[in-house]
Amino acid sequence: MQSAEAKFNKNSLLLALRRYSSAVSDMEQTILLPSLLRDVPSDEVWDSEAGEESCGDLYRNYVMLKAMRNTVESGLVPLDDHKTKNSTALNKTLEPLLDTDPEALFRFHLRGLFSVMSDLTKKTQSLTEKYMDIIGVAN
Amino acid sequence: MQSAEAKFNKNSLLLALRRYSSAVSDMEQTILLPSLLRDVPSDEVWDSEAGEESCGDLYRNYVMLKAMRNTVESGLVPLDDHKTKNSTALNKTLEPLLDTDPEALFRFHLRGLFSVMSDLTKKTQSLTEKYMDIIGVAN
Repeated sequence: MQSAEAKFNKNSLLLALRRYSSAVSDMEQTILLPSLLRDVPSDEVWDSEAGEESCGDLYRNYVMLKAMRNTVESGLVPLDDHKTKNSTALNKTLEPLLDTDPEALFRFHLRGLFSVMSDLTKKTQSLTEKYMDIIGVAN
Repeated sequence: MQSAEAKFNKNSLLLALRRYSSAVSDMEQTILLPSLLRDVPSDEVWDSEAGEESCGDLYRNYVMLKAMRNTVESGLVPLDDHKTKNSTALNKTLEPLLDTDPEALFRFHLRGLFSVMSDLTKKTQSLTEKYMDIIGVAN
């Protein structure tokens, strides 16, 4: 029974949100000098599709991960969604499907949010590790 | 200040989830004989794209709205997402965009979940009203 329960909890969206939030707290407590991340190139493309724009440095990722944690903790839905080109692209692609049945949409967004939260948690942990490499502290 | 706060809360995902949950409770308390909804055609296509399959009756919608409330309340992510054709269609369309930056994906799914929750709340209230019409109780 216990393993069934563990599996149950592992898939909880609220748990995923909490896990991300705690990874960002760890990051904040570890990265005492965020400015050391400036100009360290990031291997991830956060800003643009297919690297059309500059990829940004680790400092940018740090700021972004903190900002998203605030959104997660406030539980607020960002309405000003014209900030990034990508979300507009996503909306455009999805437009014809938005009339689909709400059950499918519900499952789709719930799973999507869960998966993006797991991804963000990994990125936060990896950024924390990179900082420790930079300051020469072994994990 | 108060109106700013009101606006703030109105966009909270957790509030949207709670609002849906309470609409379903109202529906359950009102609809004492769900079987009366059987064979009453639904004007909504829940089951299929462009009416390929049968549209289902109000009873099906009733069962679906209750099932989704359970998912919402448990906060669990449905992993068996092959149930509906539509969610597969959604995933396929989105595939090329899944490599996009996580911030855009995060905002996209958060907004999407908020919007589908509002939609489900309205559908639940409308189903409750239809039941009252059927049993001849004025709103």
